[in-house]
Amino acid sequence: MVPARLTVVTLGARDLPSLREFYTRLGWPLAIEMDGFAVFGLHGAVLALFPLDELAADGHVEAAAPAEGIAASLAINVDERDEVDTALDAARAAGGRVTKEPVDADWGGRTAYFADPEDNYWEIAWVPPDSSMAAAIARATASA
Amino acid sequence: MVPARLTVVTLGARDLPSLREFYTRLGWPLAIEMDGFAVFGLHGAVLALFPLDELAADGHVEAAAPAEGIAASLAINVDERDEVDTALDAARAAGGRVTKEPVDADWGGRTAYFADPEDNYWEIAWVPPDSSMAAAIARATASA
Repeated sequence: MVPARLTVVTLGARDLPSLREFYTRLGWPLAIEMDGFAVFGLHGAVLALFPLDELAADGHVEAAAPAEGIAASLAINVDERDEVDTALDAARAAGGRVTKEPVDADWGGRTAYFADPEDNYWEIAWVPPDSSMAAAIARATASA
Repeated sequence: MVPARLTVVTLGARDLPSLREFYTRLGWPLAIEMDGFAVFGLHGAVLALFPLDELAADGHVEAAAPAEGIAASLAINVDERDEVDTALDAARAAGGRVTKEPVDADWGGRTAYFADPEDNYWEIAWVPPDSSMAAAIARATASA
């Protein structure tokens, strides 16, 4: 069995210093800062930045070519509905490219999207506290 | 300020039922199972699967074309060095495509990589318990 964990997300950075600078502007705390490696101490999973060619070498895989469009998203879940708007404004002020302004979703929550300078997509989401998604997130971030 | 959280990773699935089946074969618990949405209750961040075209529509972005190579990785951090090997064997048995057999890393840990059937890359990693990475992961998954 594979342990049911998702503990680190590593983005293959094309320009690590500027990507690190962007996430620093979000107000996120650097837990590890080295020449070619940066780790932000988030709640949930840790976010790591690693040069794309080194990530590819580490995984014994080719590096992906720059691509247009979304393949996956990372989410920041906030505690209050209104926080979606304030967090998106902060991401925009830091240089995030907003692709979707905050809207109430038909499933009862509120969401918005932005992309970092290398087109990694983030969703800012509020989910109703009595939803199965809120329960899954609470369990995921509870101590083992 | 943007809350320092990474609470959900959503993969845009080209074939959601077969991708869901793969992660089920890893032994991962389904927290939400709907026709076009699946959520696995992991520790750290939650893993969601959502049809790629619906993810793109939700984010107001084009869907990425199928691409070769690695752009990012998701990590499963295990508690013991030997667990890298047993977890990788389990991932392989479930149909994971192993790109890197377990090796001891020069930074003191042990890692391996596999890809899911849609070429999302996972690292299985053991990091020394006295490392700054282990500390960051412990903080990320501690209750708020």
